[in-house]
Amino acid sequence: MTHQSPSYSLTMRLRYPDRPGQLGRITTTIGEADGLIGSVDIVKVDKDIITRDVTVNATNVEHGEQIVRRIQAMSDVEVVNVSDRVFLLHLGGKIEITSKLPVKTRDDLSMAYTPGVARVCRAIFQDPESSFALTIRKNIIAVVTDGSAVLGMGNIGPRAALPVMEGKALLFKEFGGIDAFPICLDTQDTDRIVETVCYLAPTFGGINLEDISAPRCIEIEERLIAKLEIPVFHDDQHGTAIVVLAGLTNALKLVDKSLAAVRIVINGAGAAGTATTKLLTAAGAKNIVVCDRSGAIFAGRTDHMNSSKQWLAEHTNPDQQMGTLADVIRGADVFVGVSSAGALQPQAAASMTQNAIVFALANPDPEIRPEDVSENVRVMATGRSDYANQVNNVLCFPGLFRGVLDVRARSINDEMKLAAARAIAGVIEEDELHPDYIIPSVFDRRVVKVVAKAVSETAFATDVARRRQKPSFQIA
Amino acid sequence: MTHQSPSYSLTMRLRYPDRPGQLGRITTTIGEADGLIGSVDIVKVDKDIITRDVTVNATNVEHGEQIVRRIQAMSDVEVVNVSDRVFLLHLGGKIEITSKLPVKTRDDLSMAYTPGVARVCRAIFQDPESSFALTIRKNIIAVVTDGSAVLGMGNIGPRAALPVMEGKALLFKEFGGIDAFPICLDTQDTDRIVETVCYLAPTFGGINLEDISAPRCIEIEERLIAKLEIPVFHDDQHGTAIVVLAGLTNALKLVDKSLAAVRIVINGAGAAGTATTKLLTAAGAKNIVVCDRSGAIFAGRTDHMNSSKQWLAEHTNPDQQMGTLADVIRGADVFVGVSSAGALQPQAAASMTQNAIVFALANPDPEIRPEDVSENVRVMATGRSDYANQVNNVLCFPGLFRGVLDVRARSINDEMKLAAARAIAGVIEEDELHPDYIIPSVFDRRVVKVVAKAVSETAFATDVARRRQKPSFQIA
Repeated sequence: MTHQSPSYSLTMRLRYPDRPGQLGRITTTIGEADGLIGSVDIVKVDKDIITRDVTVNATNVEHGEQIVRRIQAMSDVEVVNVSDRVFLLHLGGKIEITSKLPVKTRDDLSMAYTPGVARVCRAIFQDPESSFALTIRKNIIAVVTDGSAVLGMGNIGPRAALPVMEGKALLFKEFGGIDAFPICLDTQDTDRIVETVCYLAPTFGGINLEDISAPRCIEIEERLIAKLEIPVFHDDQHGTAIVVLAGLTNALKLVDKSLAAVRIVINGAGAAGTATTKLLTAAGAKNIVVCDRSGAIFAGRTDHMNSSKQWLAEHTNPDQQMGTLADVIRGADVFVGVSSAGALQPQAAASMTQNAIVFALANPDPEIRPEDVSENVRVMATGRSDYANQVNNVLCFPGLFRGVLDVRARSINDEMKLAAARAIAGVIEEDELHPDYIIPSVFDRRVVKVVAKAVSETAFATDVARRRQKPSFQIA
Repeated sequence: MTHQSPSYSLTMRLRYPDRPGQLGRITTTIGEADGLIGSVDIVKVDKDIITRDVTVNATNVEHGEQIVRRIQAMSDVEVVNVSDRVFLLHLGGKIEITSKLPVKTRDDLSMAYTPGVARVCRAIFQDPESSFALTIRKNIIAVVTDGSAVLGMGNIGPRAALPVMEGKALLFKEFGGIDAFPICLDTQDTDRIVETVCYLAPTFGGINLEDISAPRCIEIEERLIAKLEIPVFHDDQHGTAIVVLAGLTNALKLVDKSLAAVRIVINGAGAAGTATTKLLTAAGAKNIVVCDRSGAIFAGRTDHMNSSKQWLAEHTNPDQQMGTLADVIRGADVFVGVSSAGALQPQAAASMTQNAIVFALANPDPEIRPEDVSENVRVMATGRSDYANQVNNVLCFPGLFRGVLDVRARSINDEMKLAAARAIAGVIEEDELHPDYIIPSVFDRRVVKVVAKAVSETAFATDVARRRQKPSFQIA
């Protein structure tokens, strides 16, 4: 699985005598070192000396360094400098704050700032709800983290987490037209995080929690939902749950089984596993067994428990199955892995029923690789973009928040989450369904629209939409 | 002083029979009602009926309503609706978050988000200072308020304060190229504000405090400066002080007096008055008397004192002057009002020396109006744009933060503030100085450049610039 990627891309500035065949020798050397050449650009031509920028994709950082060393070893070629494309791209950050109005004249100033702005302030003071119309609150959410569980890197802290949150903000804007601002908090204390987010709320129309470690993330989300008048959504929990339900809905159609009838094994009892269990249950699943590192969670288990596992013990595993993952997976219809690389052995997958469904979502390396599952597994999905059926939260969060902001929802309830999952699944027509096409592509622009529509309609239907009457600031 | 302004601008959609002279009757009616017509646009023409949008500037809200009623009273003219231009301009807020990178392909995603972003995160984890290069921190500040002292409106709270903070963000971007994000905190507790801003700091390169009531604003700023590794600046204090010093520097040249020799009376012992006193002292002023509502502050005064007035009592008023403002202003060279409308009586101004300087900065109505001062006052400045010599903080904060961010300063010291004031004053050449031109226009684009340059050079010279070595993320 080592292939060259733009995420390990470097640009070498090379200076060498302009002789026939010299560029060929360079590109051959790069090719022999397994580098994948992107662009070759001329920077400067001096009499006999030519300077070119050569961009090469490598498989990882060490590989990139090897390629550079091979070129440095060539006679007559000077490596003037090497720049890393990903780092260059990140210089100064990936988002900016821009003006929606011109401020070129005194008249502009008098309307956007003093004295005109004072009337808008007074209108909001008299009717605080109008802040959802007359300020950025209409279209902005906070992407909040404490940096305690960032991607696969763990607790790298708020400063190092910022590039990820900026990336998330990019996705919110690009896919959902939503203004998202990263808030990386310099505390990992649950009480402090809850308090801080409450103090920040007046600027935002919603809160997206991100990359906060379990089980604190669950408590933080619950407490914020109880305290705030705007929706709070922990994407690592519910975004994953929604996209899993969407994919599973289509996979079950393909194998002609019903959610109520199948036996589902979920491996991973953290935030994502718990949220997925709850949402699948809300959608009608009747037989879910959740495993953690100690094996199946069942009523009465006493080792390695916590409050959310206690909930799982009481609400799942109706047949009181015990034992390891390998024990309980035998004969199961569905496996959902939200755990770690290699957690599902090939022989365990082989012990599932015919027409089994395997969602191996650990990132970047799945619980089991598609090439390692046996033929009884009919549908396979991962979190990766280089296999079929990528289960990616970007299918959910832009459309979900688009719908929420459009109707100024006060919260995000289960009905809205289920509607989002149905909408994602529904993008693929029944006659298009295929074992390699149960989930739309992240670049399928239809997704955000149908999700937003479903979420906003459900918000109205379940009475959490704030938007009802016309704005109150017209004078006639 | 009632004149029509775009900040009280309304657009009436009018529907009427398309007869010769009808538009003339409408515009005449508006003119008779003292409305100033801006644009007249055709919306629709149906056989005999025409629909037009007529935009009118009024002097205030009530005046606008009167104009509408006059038109409604016209026979044959239907007022379809009236919209308020300032409110329309504010719909959805005045700033947005935009992407600096495209996210159109999987390659884009793999560099801006996972997996590429992980390398950038690790680099920051290893060297937290690199967050100032590899994230938005390089160019972003927070504009933080608790909504306790917003413009002239007082304690209107965080929601109603947001339009002002958005306006400030507009100005930071437009004048300084700085990304500024409004943070309106839902707490007015000093400890909570300090704590919250500390938790927010990892996302920002600087903190601009705004519209927080005195004396809390002074304590909040001092505590944040002590705790944070990024600059903290309360614009209402120091921005005002810097622009006052700049204007006073030029005004003194004009009357050929020296800062060290003049007697200065400052009316207002709040945040702005205290900061101005301190900065003028740092610049060399030797004789400042500060007045509050109880009159002159002097060593030994016991009524209506607090900690900052105690400081003023100990460090100002060398001649131990006592009495009211009217008492101590007699014979003074300079008056600086940061107090309230009408606080300086015309006869008090007349009692100042020849070639007196009066800065009447209360907003929107000054301590004394330029038309009410006698001839002994040679130079007069206000905070208003419709008189000469507007003392406006926008002359300072964009350039100051531009300079600070450019060198990644850790703090803003007195030397940097003095350098900013000198730079603003220096924009006007000596031979250009005129009683009506001691301060550059807020639209003079030279200001931000010279202020940024002066501030960044002084940051280097005083060793508070973080920027020294090259970034550490090049691989060769």
